[in-house]
Amino acid sequence: MTSPAQRFATITDRLAAQAIELPSWAFGNSGTRFRVFGTPGTPRDPFEKIADAAQVHAHTGLAPSVALHIPWDKVDDYGVLRAHAEEHGVALGTINSNTFQDEEYKFGSLAASDPTARQRAIDHHFDCIDVMHATGSRDLKIWLADGTNYSGQDDMRRRQDNLAESLATIYGRLGDEHRLVLEYKFFEPAFYHTDVPDWGTSYAQVAALGDKAMVCLDTGHHAPGTNIEFIVMQLLRLGKLGSFDFNSRYYADDDLIVGSADPFQLFRIMVEVVRGGGLDADSGVAFMLDQCHNVEEKIPGQIRSVLNVQEMTARALLIDRDALDAAQRANDVLGANGILMDAFYTDVRPMLAEWRASRGLPADPMAAYAASGYYDRIVAERVGGTQAGWGA
Amino acid sequence: MTSPAQRFATITDRLAAQAIELPSWAFGNSGTRFRVFGTPGTPRDPFEKIADAAQVHAHTGLAPSVALHIPWDKVDDYGVLRAHAEEHGVALGTINSNTFQDEEYKFGSLAASDPTARQRAIDHHFDCIDVMHATGSRDLKIWLADGTNYSGQDDMRRRQDNLAESLATIYGRLGDEHRLVLEYKFFEPAFYHTDVPDWGTSYAQVAALGDKAMVCLDTGHHAPGTNIEFIVMQLLRLGKLGSFDFNSRYYADDDLIVGSADPFQLFRIMVEVVRGGGLDADSGVAFMLDQCHNVEEKIPGQIRSVLNVQEMTARALLIDRDALDAAQRANDVLGANGILMDAFYTDVRPMLAEWRASRGLPADPMAAYAASGYYDRIVAERVGGTQAGWGA
Amino acid sequence: MTSPAQRFATITDRLAAQAIELPSWAFGNSGTRFRVFGTPGTPRDPFEKIADAAQVHAHTGLAPSVALHIPWDKVDDYGVLRAHAEEHGVALGTINSNTFQDEEYKFGSLAASDPTARQRAIDHHFDCIDVMHATGSRDLKIWLADGTNYSGQDDMRRRQDNLAESLATIYGRLGDEHRLVLEYKFFEPAFYHTDVPDWGTSYAQVAALGDKAMVCLDTGHHAPGTNIEFIVMQLLRLGKLGSFDFNSRYYADDDLIVGSADPFQLFRIMVEVVRGGGLDADSGVAFMLDQCHNVEEKIPGQIRSVLNVQEMTARALLIDRDALDAAQRANDVLGANGILMDAFYTDVRPMLAEWRASRGLPADPMAAYAASGYYDRIVAERVGGTQAGWGA
Amino acid sequence: MTSPAQRFATITDRLAAQAIELPSWAFGNSGTRFRVFGTPGTPRDPFEKIADAAQVHAHTGLAPSVALHIPWDKVDDYGVLRAHAEEHGVALGTINSNTFQDEEYKFGSLAASDPTARQRAIDHHFDCIDVMHATGSRDLKIWLADGTNYSGQDDMRRRQDNLAESLATIYGRLGDEHRLVLEYKFFEPAFYHTDVPDWGTSYAQVAALGDKAMVCLDTGHHAPGTNIEFIVMQLLRLGKLGSFDFNSRYYADDDLIVGSADPFQLFRIMVEVVRGGGLDADSGVAFMLDQCHNVEEKIPGQIRSVLNVQEMTARALLIDRDALDAAQRANDVLGANGILMDAFYTDVRPMLAEWRASRGLPADPMAAYAASGYYDRIVAERVGGTQAGWGA
Repeated sequence: MTSPAQRFATITDRLAAQAIELPSWAFGNSGTRFRVFGTPGTPRDPFEKIADAAQVHAHTGLAPSVALHIPWDKVDDYGVLRAHAEEHGVALGTINSNTFQDEEYKFGSLAASDPTARQRAIDHHFDCIDVMHATGSRDLKIWLADGTNYSGQDDMRRRQDNLAESLATIYGRLGDEHRLVLEYKFFEPAFYHTDVPDWGTSYAQVAALGDKAMVCLDTGHHAPGTNIEFIVMQLLRLGKLGSFDFNSRYYADDDLIVGSADPFQLFRIMVEVVRGGGLDADSGVAFMLDQCHNVEEKIPGQIRSVLNVQEMTARALLIDRDALDAAQRANDVLGANGILMDAFYTDVRPMLAEWRASRGLPADPMAAYAASGYYDRIVAERVGGTQAGWGA
Repeated sequence: MTSPAQRFATITDRLAAQAIELPSWAFGNSGTRFRVFGTPGTPRDPFEKIADAAQVHAHTGLAPSVALHIPWDKVDDYGVLRAHAEEHGVALGTINSNTFQDEEYKFGSLAASDPTARQRAIDHHFDCIDVMHATGSRDLKIWLADGTNYSGQDDMRRRQDNLAESLATIYGRLGDEHRLVLEYKFFEPAFYHTDVPDWGTSYAQVAALGDKAMVCLDTGHHAPGTNIEFIVMQLLRLGKLGSFDFNSRYYADDDLIVGSADPFQLFRIMVEVVRGGGLDADSGVAFMLDQCHNVEEKIPGQIRSVLNVQEMTARALLIDRDALDAAQRANDVLGANGILMDAFYTDVRPMLAEWRASRGLPADPMAAYAASGYYDRIVAERVGGTQAGWGA
Repeated sequence: MTSPAQRFATITDRLAAQAIELPSWAFGNSGTRFRVFGTPGTPRDPFEKIADAAQVHAHTGLAPSVALHIPWDKVDDYGVLRAHAEEHGVALGTINSNTFQDEEYKFGSLAASDPTARQRAIDHHFDCIDVMHATGSRDLKIWLADGTNYSGQDDMRRRQDNLAESLATIYGRLGDEHRLVLEYKFFEPAFYHTDVPDWGTSYAQVAALGDKAMVCLDTGHHAPGTNIEFIVMQLLRLGKLGSFDFNSRYYADDDLIVGSADPFQLFRIMVEVVRGGGLDADSGVAFMLDQCHNVEEKIPGQIRSVLNVQEMTARALLIDRDALDAAQRANDVLGANGILMDAFYTDVRPMLAEWRASRGLPADPMAAYAASGYYDRIVAERVGGTQAGWGA
Repeated sequence: MTSPAQRFATITDRLAAQAIELPSWAFGNSGTRFRVFGTPGTPRDPFEKIADAAQVHAHTGLAPSVALHIPWDKVDDYGVLRAHAEEHGVALGTINSNTFQDEEYKFGSLAASDPTARQRAIDHHFDCIDVMHATGSRDLKIWLADGTNYSGQDDMRRRQDNLAESLATIYGRLGDEHRLVLEYKFFEPAFYHTDVPDWGTSYAQVAALGDKAMVCLDTGHHAPGTNIEFIVMQLLRLGKLGSFDFNSRYYADDDLIVGSADPFQLFRIMVEVVRGGGLDADSGVAFMLDQCHNVEEKIPGQIRSVLNVQEMTARALLIDRDALDAAQRANDVLGANGILMDAFYTDVRPMLAEWRASRGLPADPMAAYAASGYYDRIVAERVGGTQAGWGA
């Protein structure tokens, strides 16, 4: 039996390779339909968002890229934005399209019955692909708000066929190095039906497109009681897990800090990621955050989040796989479960702190950020203008 | 065995007494955190909202009063607003407070740990009580957005005690003719904990206040699988059902048209209302809509809603109570259920149409409104200004 | 605008073609883990179950076949059982396998880590295929109880691969005229993970097998909030909807009378069945009941159930599809929904009663069965022996 | 800043006082409606169950009493059973009544419409009170299976009144030293309605009885998404939390090992217990397990369970309450949550092992039990007879 510290020494290579992409919009204001509360220092444009994101990476070494959302992060010259990011030590990552904020999308976009709305949404994705060429992004991520609020409001079957056709058109425009990643979501903003509500639908749609089309699993987008790690396992098995949108939820799509509502679930997810090869260099699985910091500070919220993912990854990697396999094959229920729980209950934080320090990173990134004075600086500097949010 | 028509003749007195209060905010724009879509003709102020609400009553005879939301419906002179309403054939009803849109309420209002926030929220309710004196309203309805997003964020116990104290202060300010009605809600906008999350909490809080404090049951505010009609039964039994907020939902607090997602549930609720005396003249139960018409037209949406309540009330009243009682006491499961289902499947619409016509109302209120030209008129007239929504 | 009666006249051909398969086990005792209550007259063997099932068909004309469950319906000579069924006017239908009641299956069957358990389960399916040859059945239905109760208890990925291999072996043994239908289930009897928990998994598994493998959709096997009719739509679109297991539920897999908990949901399901061609003669979709009559009488429970399906089918067929399509394409939300609701609220019962009578069937099958004296006869005759249940 | 070890030293007094009652039925066989799997060595009578329970206490020092279930644990002379328990180092605890397994209870017991069924159930509780006098038990725990499967099946209001009357009758029979503890449960075995479905109903019922009536909170008996620790807080605040039934669940009432499905939830529950004084000597809160070991070994399952509770209690006690309070009052969301999470992620297991050893207990109770040879002994000895289960 090796000690936790000895076992930890064997996993640092894998931890060192870990990269978690940050969403630019996490640094802007967000809220609920009832209210969006602002906070001093909130970025006013994509450049300031990237500067904030770079703080997360600087303190953790975990977040080397930033996902953009078009049009929220629209700029005149993406080459300039890319250079700005690189100066700050991060890269531009996934391009997220937006098909839910124009008047034309009131009744849907890629799946809508109205061909004009569909064409507009397709054209928007063409624009996004242009942006991808400029930013050097690999992934075009599509989350569709499409759906209906009342039964009979529209024809679900026709919409599914519309969606297939729209996606095929967009897929045909991808560059060789690009991927299309289709996110599914259980409900919201549509209440009766959503056009891509579950992994099965996303899988059936991307399987029809081709090898460059993959599924995005957002951890907050499932019905209550859903075993999410099972889906992780299945998508890895089917070779179609393109990316994660990490966050946490109690009931709906709360977009809370990943790992905050059910840390054990995050652990189980990471266990299946490891088991299915999702951490391997060639897995192609992208790990992203997709969160809203409605009431807490945003930069520390993101730091906390990537640390949570790192800590759970470490715990998942610490599992004694040989012992687990033996217990499983012996139908030793308590034994097998106990091996898993032992890893979960191991306090990896001191080991991670030490390892972090050994790599020139702060042992305590939260404290280091707080001590950095960055927050006071942006509060002082970012006066005037309009704080960024989901609309800008 | 009497025919449906014969039985219908026996329930028209009760139907004639039915009144459903409309929420002023249903006539303004609403949406999700992702987008609020506008529509032409949307009211710009409380006067126009009331004019629209009056259309619902004019075509159905079902909606003689309009609930106000403060500050969304703030006016300089409530006497003028009251006179305006009366000219349009409706009265002003319940006053709804708002403790979720000021910066001060970011971490709560009546339950907050911050005494300044609590005092501000108490003062706001004092203002609402002043409005009630001016409008002649009976009910002060309190829906609290208070809660937290992260475990440990605040002390739930202290907040519960804070809430009790705040409510007692407000209760002490009520006029003799006033009531305080405390709404509970399962989740949203807070995600980890809500300070009044269930009927039990609302009941415990209002029971501690006194006879003028009651529970408000919003049909969209429960965990999945909750038997809502059981709660209706229980609150009527305990003498604490103050009012309904009617709407419909598939998963969260969708605020869809009442009866649209699960008509049978609305039926079962009305069955318990009838059973428990909630339709009796002296029951004190207020029936209100609380809905959002995010994608559908607002005035017809409200007309459809009150008709749904009326139709379900008729079906509930048509139940052969003696036969049901006999079957129940005989443990005749299929027989008893069959008696209920028979009422549910009875098509009351032709009978209601005829009865409506006999009272000088349109047989088909939806068609009559469409034919009235009112919509074209408001679209033409309401140009410029800012359309009302949840923020104004 | 045609009257309901005129429209009804246009759909009787389709209603006349409707057939709903009954499960033999619905006529035996069932219950919960807390208690199985018995009732007088319960069958003691498959012959008596089939006699009871024949009563349902005799009174409704809707249930011409009976599904068997092996080993619960094991007999020495299936030719004799088949002749018995034919004498009673019904046919033998789907063969349901059982991989959850032997000691060997404690930790799983087709997906188990233990190769002995897997082989035993495969052999059992070979036996079932032998039975199918004797009974003339088309469908081999597999519902798997396989899963685990604790995270880490077994390797979900390995089990999924095991399952694929086991199914391929069974598939290879099917006769040309046979189909394999794989049922999915959200949870129970396993609590942490289920090996076929959702339609996506069932679809991925059967798609890998070939054209004779299909998905079975049990209406009670979904997470709360799941839009089941969407799945019906999707599986029909993908050409993989093999069969329905109809029943009804409030929260878990309650196996209540179909249509009893949420009649509107059953309506929406039938709407999508019609829309997707599932009622067409060549659709290959099998309609079955899978229910438990824990507290209500069994034969009337089944009569009530097939009538519920028939009534909802009639309502779904009555929808004015042209008007609906026009309203949908015009984004007329209330109009489109209204067309659907109009069909739902139409009382088809008198029309069905009349049509039934015109075909020599009882206008009121429930009353006709009650008046038939059959129940008293079986209570008197079936004395002694062991009442059939899930164990026999 | 003190070290975890220093802080641990301050909480050992409270840990030493902790006592968790074991349910006798956890040592018998249990399962689902599909199958009850047996295991070698399972007790055949209450004496053997108590012997097994004593093993849990012997290895952990945490489980000094055993709850009985009547009639499953019926014996001729409870004095003998009591002496047997004392010889084994444990006491007899809560008496659990059973009103769901007689034919008479098919349609309910204390709440049933049938007065004969009610009287029978009342008489059974009188018998239980007699047992309590003989065993020296304090608590009579009532979990009611009462409910209905179909809407309209029975009158929910009448049943609620029946229940109140039945409970009052039983309450009147309690000895001075007795308490009545009323458990609530969301669903199962009834599917449409349950007569005591939520804490509000249990609270309203016991509040009407008097000071000796309390609520029992079973952690598996809530709708999905329910914030259980909020209810713990509220019941402690209202002075009505009588006892816990600890277990764990993913979706329904799975009765898994406490802490296995969502360890963080168990932590949050224990945090509120500590916060509300539930661990204080005079709190009157009883901590019990109520679990089923369907697939895992029973004695180690119980050992694992009490250790889980102990470990979470330690984590909850380790919270820096002063720092937490300060962060909460400052609305420092991340800070306050971080203080909670710090305690949760602290690995208390080595400290507990050491402390356990210092008290003459095994450092690793699971390993100590495995090494004890007890299991082999009972397997060898308990041959023949009928293994105990829920029916015996």
